[in-house]
Amino acid sequence: MGNCLIAQSGGPTAVINGSLAGVIRANQLNKKFDKVLGGIHGIEGVLQNKLFDLTNISADEVNLLRQTPSSALGTCRYKLKRDQAEDFETLNKVLQENNVDVMFYVGGNDSMDTVDALSEWAAKHGSNTRFVGIPKTVDNDLVPPDHCPGFPSAAKFANLVTRATAFDYDAYTRPEVFVLETMGRDAGWLAASCCMSGVVDLLVLPEIAFDKQAFLNEVQKHMDEKNSCYIVISEGARDAEGNYVAAGESANDGFAHAVLGGAGLALKQMIVDAGVAPRGVVQDLSRAARSSNFAMSKVDYDEAYELGLSAHMHACDESFTAKVVGVKRGENANGEYAAEIFTDDASKFANFVKAFPTDWAKANYAGITSEAEDYFAPLIKGEPKLEWGDDGLLKMVKPFNLR
Amino acid sequence: MGNCLIAQSGGPTAVINGSLAGVIRANQLNKKFDKVLGGIHGIEGVLQNKLFDLTNISADEVNLLRQTPSSALGTCRYKLKRDQAEDFETLNKVLQENNVDVMFYVGGNDSMDTVDALSEWAAKHGSNTRFVGIPKTVDNDLVPPDHCPGFPSAAKFANLVTRATAFDYDAYTRPEVFVLETMGRDAGWLAASCCMSGVVDLLVLPEIAFDKQAFLNEVQKHMDEKNSCYIVISEGARDAEGNYVAAGESANDGFAHAVLGGAGLALKQMIVDAGVAPRGVVQDLSRAARSSNFAMSKVDYDEAYELGLSAHMHACDESFTAKVVGVKRGENANGEYAAEIFTDDASKFANFVKAFPTDWAKANYAGITSEAEDYFAPLIKGEPKLEWGDDGLLKMVKPFNLR
Repeated sequence: MGNCLIAQSGGPTAVINGSLAGVIRANQLNKKFDKVLGGIHGIEGVLQNKLFDLTNISADEVNLLRQTPSSALGTCRYKLKRDQAEDFETLNKVLQENNVDVMFYVGGNDSMDTVDALSEWAAKHGSNTRFVGIPKTVDNDLVPPDHCPGFPSAAKFANLVTRATAFDYDAYTRPEVFVLETMGRDAGWLAASCCMSGVVDLLVLPEIAFDKQAFLNEVQKHMDEKNSCYIVISEGARDAEGNYVAAGESANDGFAHAVLGGAGLALKQMIVDAGVAPRGVVQDLSRAARSSNFAMSKVDYDEAYELGLSAHMHACDESFTAKVVGVKRGENANGEYAAEIFTDDASKFANFVKAFPTDWAKANYAGITSEAEDYFAPLIKGEPKLEWGDDGLLKMVKPFNLR
Repeated sequence: MGNCLIAQSGGPTAVINGSLAGVIRANQLNKKFDKVLGGIHGIEGVLQNKLFDLTNISADEVNLLRQTPSSALGTCRYKLKRDQAEDFETLNKVLQENNVDVMFYVGGNDSMDTVDALSEWAAKHGSNTRFVGIPKTVDNDLVPPDHCPGFPSAAKFANLVTRATAFDYDAYTRPEVFVLETMGRDAGWLAASCCMSGVVDLLVLPEIAFDKQAFLNEVQKHMDEKNSCYIVISEGARDAEGNYVAAGESANDGFAHAVLGGAGLALKQMIVDAGVAPRGVVQDLSRAARSSNFAMSKVDYDEAYELGLSAHMHACDESFTAKVVGVKRGENANGEYAAEIFTDDASKFANFVKAFPTDWAKANYAGITSEAEDYFAPLIKGEPKLEWGDDGLLKMVKPFNLR
């Protein structure tokens, strides 16, 4: 029997280690591979033969891995390009030397492209190594899955903070805007999800060209009505010319601010400069949204782990390569949401970005439609039972890349 | 029998409604007062006779109030000044009209000064109304209590985010600094508490004059050693001349940035401009730290409620006025942390600010001493059992100021 290898790539999430735990545990339940090797810092570390033996970590550690955020193997931003033959040869050599039959790669669409490219190279060069992708992304921008591990937990955390900060904001009487910023450079899924909190007045998405005057008019209406306006903006919001709100230059007026922060700060300043509100508060969720393991969605916690289990199970089939496992939206016998695991070609995940549907956004920045609510609702449900330490913080494993 | 009145003031916290719930529940257990009236928006609403009858809210609502963040009665920034006779007369009229025997005021040191001033005025003018303070503050800057409700939950949330984001940050290899900013304009308690996460490299407090070059030298050492440096800064950090780091002007050099954000963004920019690190990530906890009810400390959750109960119990003594209830650090029979409730004169709480002890900070921004760790450790322990809704979010009550 040969070994398998698993590595993580791209931006970490709260549950990406759940998929890692799933692959490790599946191999403990059905020892298809002699060893489960972890590639440190994604493809970058694999190229340098930086591997860590994960085969026999304890059941306790598997369990704690599921509640450890970030990428326990370390991550990378390195993209394998199809024309860099040297990288493919080096990688093949490392995989051969380590007797790797299957490499699992956990990541976003770039990583799924890597799975496809490596499979293609292997077929062309007579290598038997197989490649399997496990998707994750806080941005939720992958096709064809219904959604990807990492996003539901980020959405749950974002909604919890949105509702809590809205209550904080509503306790005051003075006129003021509140601006919450989320990650999402090209896809507004996370920002849009915040509307599930029921407290968002206005929503600014990258998918809908930002019209400064139209937007300020809407803010003015809320200020006139109730002296407050709770706004959520995605970091990548931009106008019709592609100018980012975060760049801080209000098109067609004399203001040009040297904004060191992001879209939230710039939007607040734009509103204040326009005299629509005398002041504002900004809450940038930043990295906390994708890493906050103490607010994971149970659906996400379960699905990330089960995708790892399923990837290993499918990989037992020796013709399974250039494939990715993913989640489709299904129903259980009671008509409730249930994840259906499917597999498809890596090439179908590789080169597309799934934008938030513009017809799921209400006109005039007024939030999301009931279709969008129906989509988000099941994803943020449930709270996994987590293990807390005597120090009052969540127990975690020490990341493998730091051992 | 007369009535009692309770109002909330200053910045909200995750548990300030716990003290409100405590007063309401105590009166349901021992009906000393005919009615428990809530003053909407603190003293500001009381002056306008904006009251809400809380006497008979359900046990369910009392329980949900304990997990509802912010100030459910609304808050204010209005400070009653001793020379504004008109305010005292108006307030006295409202209290007389509503047959108020005791007014409870939940707030920080300004509010405790209000309790003192109102008691003094009542004594001078032959009024029998009594005034009792219940402390709260996310800044933890009140004397004489060991700590105040609101702070422990903020510290727990801050530590959870610190540890989660540090793991996220550690997953990468590229050289970069990470800067986390907390609230705390004059007191560095919340920033200092983040060191309980065990991942903080450098800590910048308002209590210790910021020395740019000395600080940059320390950052450089961490970058040289491991290509990373996790920094926590309190919003009010400043240099020996009193210039705030947040102002963004690096003393004694040519840089002067128009920083719209706070201390974190300015510090990151300072480090990048100095060439100590090529880039950085900023996480500003902002309002989330004081409002995140989904990460409350059990100690805080319990103490806030019990201070409310205790305030009501003490107020049954008809000589009890111009007093505040607070928490002292005690020990149970097993030698473990236990809160001891004490009472003292409001005047002792009113005009002092408790800074983080500078001898609890290690030299060279290197974090906190074991004395500080011993102080923080029990405060962030334990997780209350919370009620979650079917929507995947925490159940809350609708704030009284919005009904």
